Amino acid sequence: MSKKGCCDSVGECFFDYYTSKILVIRSRKVGTLNRFTQALVIAYVIGYVCVLKKGYQDTDTVLSSVTTKVKGIALTNTTELGERIWDVADYIIPPQVDRRFDEEEVQARRLKCQLTSLVPPPSRTGRCVNYNDTVKTCEVLSWCPLEKIVEPPNPPLLADAENFTVLIKNNIRYPKFNFNKRNILPNINSSYLTQCVFSRKTDPDCPIFRLKDIVEEAEEDFQTMAVHGGVMGVQIRWDCDLDMPQSWCVPRYTFRRLDNKDPENNVAPGYNFRFAKYYKDSDGTETRTLIKGYGIRFDVLVFGQAGKFNIIPTLLNIGAGLALLGLVNVICDWIVLTFMTRKHHYKEQKYTYVDDFGLVSI
Amino acid sequence: MSKKGCCDSVGECFFDYYTSKILVIRSRKVGTLNRFTQALVIAYVIGYVCVLKKGYQDTDTVLSSVTTKVKGIALTNTTELGERIWDVADYIIPPQVDRRFDEEEVQARRLKCQLTSLVPPPSRTGRCVNYNDTVKTCEVLSWCPLEKIVEPPNPPLLADAENFTVLIKNNIRYPKFNFNKRNILPNINSSYLTQCVFSRKTDPDCPIFRLKDIVEEAEEDFQTMAVHGGVMGVQIRWDCDLDMPQSWCVPRYTFRRLDNKDPENNVAPGYNFRFAKYYKDSDGTETRTLIKGYGIRFDVLVFGQAGKFNIIPTLLNIGAGLALLGLVNVICDWIVLTFMTRKHHYKEQKYTYVDDFGLVSI
Amino acid sequence: MSKKGCCDSVGECFFDYYTSKILVIRSRKVGTLNRFTQALVIAYVIGYVCVLKKGYQDTDTVLSSVTTKVKGIALTNTTELGERIWDVADYIIPPQVDRRFDEEEVQARRLKCQLTSLVPPPSRTGRCVNYNDTVKTCEVLSWCPLEKIVEPPNPPLLADAENFTVLIKNNIRYPKFNFNKRNILPNINSSYLTQCVFSRKTDPDCPIFRLKDIVEEAEEDFQTMAVHGGVMGVQIRWDCDLDMPQSWCVPRYTFRRLDNKDPENNVAPGYNFRFAKYYKDSDGTETRTLIKGYGIRFDVLVFGQAGKFNIIPTLLNIGAGLALLGLVNVICDWIVLTFMTRKHHYKEQKYTYVDDFGLVSI
Repeated sequence: MSKKGCCDSVGECFFDYYTSKILVIRSRKVGTLNRFTQALVIAYVIGYVCVLKKGYQDTDTVLSSVTTKVKGIALTNTTELGERIWDVADYIIPPQVDRRFDEEEVQARRLKCQLTSLVPPPSRTGRCVNYNDTVKTCEVLSWCPLEKIVEPPNPPLLADAENFTVLIKNNIRYPKFNFNKRNILPNINSSYLTQCVFSRKTDPDCPIFRLKDIVEEAEEDFQTMAVHGGVMGVQIRWDCDLDMPQSWCVPRYTFRRLDNKDPENNVAPGYNFRFAKYYKDSDGTETRTLIKGYGIRFDVLVFGQAGKFNIIPTLLNIGAGLALLGLVNVICDWIVLTFMTRKHHYKEQKYTYVDDFGLVSI
Repeated sequence: MSKKGCCDSVGECFFDYYTSKILVIRSRKVGTLNRFTQALVIAYVIGYVCVLKKGYQDTDTVLSSVTTKVKGIALTNTTELGERIWDVADYIIPPQVDRRFDEEEVQARRLKCQLTSLVPPPSRTGRCVNYNDTVKTCEVLSWCPLEKIVEPPNPPLLADAENFTVLIKNNIRYPKFNFNKRNILPNINSSYLTQCVFSRKTDPDCPIFRLKDIVEEAEEDFQTMAVHGGVMGVQIRWDCDLDMPQSWCVPRYTFRRLDNKDPENNVAPGYNFRFAKYYKDSDGTETRTLIKGYGIRFDVLVFGQAGKFNIIPTLLNIGAGLALLGLVNVICDWIVLTFMTRKHHYKEQKYTYVDDFGLVSI
Repeated sequence: MSKKGCCDSVGECFFDYYTSKILVIRSRKVGTLNRFTQALVIAYVIGYVCVLKKGYQDTDTVLSSVTTKVKGIALTNTTELGERIWDVADYIIPPQVDRRFDEEEVQARRLKCQLTSLVPPPSRTGRCVNYNDTVKTCEVLSWCPLEKIVEPPNPPLLADAENFTVLIKNNIRYPKFNFNKRNILPNINSSYLTQCVFSRKTDPDCPIFRLKDIVEEAEEDFQTMAVHGGVMGVQIRWDCDLDMPQSWCVPRYTFRRLDNKDPENNVAPGYNFRFAKYYKDSDGTETRTLIKGYGIRFDVLVFGQAGKFNIIPTLLNIGAGLALLGLVNVICDWIVLTFMTRKHHYKEQKYTYVDDFGLVSI
């Protein structure tokens, strides 16, 4: 024992191979239980973690750039404006963000206005009063007349807008994997693109969307929504498995209403905003057309996750799986030594006891 | 030994149960040490990883859509412009992005200008010279007069803007968990929303912010900041534990100055930008009002992470915890066999030596 | 055996120390193999996971705010417009988003137009017809004349724009680590910033970019690209190791063309958009200048990941590493007991067999 029991030198000891002494219990019951539990763990690790959840992959989130282009012409006929054609430059405010507006109001700024008294907001009238014998001006120094508070027009001014189409160009990048792709897929040709319209069933890859379709897929009604305005989310999901051919990595479009149409816990329901066009008369008087637009804003939300084989998450998951296999042994040990009829017999063989006084009982 | 020592067939062997032979050291010292270390590891895994850091959860990052609406009217009185009222359509450039501007300058384009010589930039004067006997034009073909380089007005033109309020509507989504929420919480009713203003203490859920409060929370002074402009970040943090009731998932607002006010390593300090309003005279001459706006831009930054129970990170962490428990054993073994007085006694029992020549020493 | 073999009380048993009985095989062959494999695993865990991939770090993705400022003046000379100077307020549409436009067209709205018949879109002519004896109006109630479909001007109107510079101010935040930084680094002073231009070799930290350089780095030609327009991505990558000094955390700029220049599977190639300037004559007639801008849009894409030491991923990786070390033992066992000449000898020592009938064979 003496010579062999301790190493003469570190080097000698270093290349010893240490392996556990094993008790083999030739019991079909516990053996079956053991193998069955092991099989479960292995099936979980391979089946669920690796195959279903792709635990062997490193992931990255998408980086995205979107440009949009709206097409469509609407004809309106109102008493204030008469018949009128609206084109893209008229109804997209600001350029390159998709919005429609519906209501218009004209105001003239009276810079000659005398501010006799700045009446506090609730009672401000905006009515025209005599400034001197010849000139009538506003009671407050503001744009005159004050904005009328009116309900938005119903039916909405640009009811035709439901047939407008919007082309969405989306370029994505997964920086970790140096992977770029566009939502106009390589298998699509130009002639198809000039005439297609997105349809979930027949044209799922067409990047041109009819506004009405977008709203309908979100289970809303375009005409109802257009009255007070609203915000629609155009969600583009890019979930890509980069271990597979690149052609499998395609965008999925879904549509969802983003604002709250429930009038209960809401403020400023719908979607509207004010902006003005400014004019100058020949005598230098500035006038403006104040426009309160009730519009449907389309927010393009791009998200997604790409996965690609990477050794670190793979080994992390294998390591965790092995540790769980170790747990199987602990459980089987516990069953064998607690419930089996011959447990005392097994214990005798498995355990050797030694105490502080060096007494050993095998 | 012969028959039992090796398996007659694979099937027979397959259902053998292999378990380590264990040496039980009945020493209270090392036993206590062992249990204590194990307790530490288990406490770490359960307490820190599971409870505090929620290692059993899969996480997702937020997807967000923001709309804003500013309210407020300002009265200014300057020598150039006289008394004037500014409303939303005047001071938000472009519509739907929150900006205030403060300085205004008027220019007329002289298209009849003769470009006698395009003097290089440093010496361009923009002064009006005789084109012919009757018409005076610019020396360079540019908008006349050239922009005067002046300090921004102090106090800022729209000093009243500090009392403007901005309503921020924020819709978020955690795509992995198909979870949507708005920052206007379900327990808030419309009448409260029409009159509330955000206050960290009294109204932490109100989505309407007074501009002055935003700037003050970032420990800046509104009037000072308004002179040269700046960029404020309105940070909305959505940290949600989706294993808990949805009503616990609420936004937290914080405010931070995003641009650099330190004049040392800075270029173009503050925040300003130029834009123009274009007019056409009755004789077709185009004029424009060039506006250099010194404004405070409010950037709404939405971020956050949601967690929900998922079996993979749970088992990953349990697996890692088990592996660490194994490490405890290695450390205890090392202590027992190195420092204990009866270490030789334990070694004799623990190790059995066998060498290449088949010599065995127990 | 009786007294020692089972615990008299739970408390007594609880502080027993359980350690595996080990068979030490003093074989240099298998010992070397074992140590070598262990060394490989440890080298992988320490070298690859910890050092290269920083597996001991928790990560966070960047939160970013960008402001831009374009500088540059262009001189154009066309038959329609004559000589003309373009400044920032003219060519950035909308303010604060970087775009150039190139083509301009003037239209006058004839509100007095009689809509005798709304001819369907394909045959709409827009030609002026007699409304009555004195007034000529459009055949359709639209802006007159209709937009001419012309090729974009080549060379582009604002060819000089290639020398424009854009200042990009970028403020980032890693919310998890409460870390903020700007792309204007603390070691840069104001005087340098007023005159520097980004250059990958000489001025990699200068946040001012010449448009031509951006396009050239993406291996495109500015003049060619400017004809039909396009979208350039200015990618700012913030990969930061927050265990290191903060001054090591610097942005890296790269440039990439985001739109598809390949004419094959493309629709609406390049980048263009329409917008209008509105005027009112002294008699109240509204006119507009419709502008179809062919521009280069610069999208600033900010991304990056910060890592900082955190105990959870560290222990996850250590745990997984330990589990892999356990796997080494399994493999070595298999080699020893399958291929070594003295395998029967080792097996005898390693395994003790016990069956359901209590027969033991050592």
